[in-house]
Amino acid sequence: MARAFSFSLVGSDGQARVGEIETPHGRVRTPAFMPVGTQATVKGLAPEQVSAAGADIVLANTYHLMLRPGPERIAALGGLHKFMNWPHAILTDSGGFQVMSLAGLRKIADEGVTFRSHLDGTMYELTPERAIEIQLLLGADIVMQLDECVKLPATRAEIERGVRLSLAWAERCKGAFAHSQPGRALFGIVQGGDEPALRRVSAQTLVEMGFDGYAIGGLAVGESQDVMLRVIEEVAPILPADRPRYLMGVGTPEDLVESVARGMDMFDCVLPTRNGRHGLAFTRFGALNLKNARHADDPRPLDEASVCPAARDYSRAYLHHLVKANEMLGAVLLTAVNLSYYQQLMADMRAAIGQGRFGDFRQQLKESWARGDIPPP
Amino acid sequence: MARAFSFSLVGSDGQARVGEIETPHGRVRTPAFMPVGTQATVKGLAPEQVSAAGADIVLANTYHLMLRPGPERIAALGGLHKFMNWPHAILTDSGGFQVMSLAGLRKIADEGVTFRSHLDGTMYELTPERAIEIQLLLGADIVMQLDECVKLPATRAEIERGVRLSLAWAERCKGAFAHSQPGRALFGIVQGGDEPALRRVSAQTLVEMGFDGYAIGGLAVGESQDVMLRVIEEVAPILPADRPRYLMGVGTPEDLVESVARGMDMFDCVLPTRNGRHGLAFTRFGALNLKNARHADDPRPLDEASVCPAARDYSRAYLHHLVKANEMLGAVLLTAVNLSYYQQLMADMRAAIGQGRFGDFRQQLKESWARGDIPPP
Repeated sequence: MARAFSFSLVGSDGQARVGEIETPHGRVRTPAFMPVGTQATVKGLAPEQVSAAGADIVLANTYHLMLRPGPERIAALGGLHKFMNWPHAILTDSGGFQVMSLAGLRKIADEGVTFRSHLDGTMYELTPERAIEIQLLLGADIVMQLDECVKLPATRAEIERGVRLSLAWAERCKGAFAHSQPGRALFGIVQGGDEPALRRVSAQTLVEMGFDGYAIGGLAVGESQDVMLRVIEEVAPILPADRPRYLMGVGTPEDLVESVARGMDMFDCVLPTRNGRHGLAFTRFGALNLKNARHADDPRPLDEASVCPAARDYSRAYLHHLVKANEMLGAVLLTAVNLSYYQQLMADMRAAIGQGRFGDFRQQLKESWARGDIPPP
Repeated sequence: MARAFSFSLVGSDGQARVGEIETPHGRVRTPAFMPVGTQATVKGLAPEQVSAAGADIVLANTYHLMLRPGPERIAALGGLHKFMNWPHAILTDSGGFQVMSLAGLRKIADEGVTFRSHLDGTMYELTPERAIEIQLLLGADIVMQLDECVKLPATRAEIERGVRLSLAWAERCKGAFAHSQPGRALFGIVQGGDEPALRRVSAQTLVEMGFDGYAIGGLAVGESQDVMLRVIEEVAPILPADRPRYLMGVGTPEDLVESVARGMDMFDCVLPTRNGRHGLAFTRFGALNLKNARHADDPRPLDEASVCPAARDYSRAYLHHLVKANEMLGAVLLTAVNLSYYQQLMADMRAAIGQGRFGDFRQQLKESWARGDIPPP
């Protein structure tokens, strides 16, 4: 491996930060958006298209890859980077979140979680130690602790149990990770639902244990943006300034901007890819639903000033046609448009923070979104 | 438009021919394989990927485009080339074949065919004149006459009726086409099923009418390769040497080689694209089914000597995983692999014919396919 994990803060503006993460597979500029490569592929795009959209890092899902094709197989084939032909950084989640949302017959105990595969019904066990082992077999640059992510709304007792279990698993993950190849990073995950006191306990205890980075988990599970932002405001000040802060599973362009404004550095979300497959385009002018008949005769591209060829080279009329005809190319092009827009947004935020004009940038962005789509010709 | 349609024979070897078609949208090297862009898109690939695979021309389907998004709409948007962002040559079929295979409630009369859209049940009429009008609205470089394609096996009476109707429609298509913008080409279509005498009558009558090129239709409809090759042997000698000969809807790599050996110049088929979406790869080593479990741990690319990145940059294990996981990228990569293989095959045939070694080439190709896949490591 080329380089060891490190994080350096390059600049800040208010709470917003711009930085650089070094990983064994290259540099990640923060604030960073990580496209989701669930099953070792960002759906519909070849890796060079993901890179061309501006991504330095992708996320892959331990739950999916442990079921198919299996981490031992991927390791024998040279690891996940080689398997999916992605030479840049990879973060893997721990599998915990998707065990909770996808698997059948879950049983959570102190030891770990047992569950039935949603693919073929096979029983699996995921312990903190196995979660780390799998992520190391995959060869992730950034490894996440196993945690219990409690869906909101939940009782205080449920949230408290999630915090207690996640902290115990964090400690065990740290132990399992200690013997890994040097250079990789392990992130702890703050839980605590919408309970400020529990969030603080979770964050403080993780910081005392010491991790290479800290994530806020258990958000983007149905709560309002207000709740999410309040949790960030509660947690971010507790996290050490010299470690990256990752907000898991978030979010809309506006969520990203508001979270960066509150000191978060890393994000992942299926929104740009999933919505792209369903005919929705994220642009400077807000979100456009290409299914809408008003696009059927519109010769204009989505955004002629975009850096993304898919946003420049095809008319809205053609994209509308592809989406209505359920053509694969529609999903491919809109996925590229959306990832490119998300990456451009991150690049613009990095530049604005670096130049000390993040407040103005944030204001202008909201005005631009509020103006909505450019009027038809 | 830049240039008018023309065809020049560059060389020949036995019955096999190598040539060049000039069109208003560039040159088409023959023997040529035309990827099928049914609904104004070669499924899954951006136009630059189709071009990078080596295609000079694509085919688009009048039936699909007349239903959605409609030829008048495409014309208002600047024509099909601009609509699908494909600056190279386009051939459109007449819609007849797909009316027969997809539409409901067909009624064929001397005047034309009325049918119910398979999308929304709307009634449409397709006459020879409307078939030409639609193709001219789309802006096709090569326009096909409306014909009646009779499915085999069929009675002699049915085949005879198809020939009579197709010849009458050929005459009317010629009349309708006469007033079009100059530079484009109109091809007649030889029908006659598996009846040699009817095939001869059809071909001779069309040649007397005079077309820019001649197609053999009504094949690849379930008959054996023997029947198909016998029809070609019957028809090709009747067709003028100075016009391109297009075998519609064909075929497998072996079909292409055998048809070129019998004097055919142009082909279209959904096989490389459809099979790619279903996990089948065409390679120098024959066809490989990537669904097969034997690929699950195979680190080798499909063909490290391929000009196609998708055949070189990904392991068989990864392609197997994508196909098993039903990931869009699997369909995209295998479509690219297959189109690239088909185009490479055409390029190799052109080179072999030009160098007077087509017989040897054909022999070596069959031996290579017969040897099958390279053995696992």
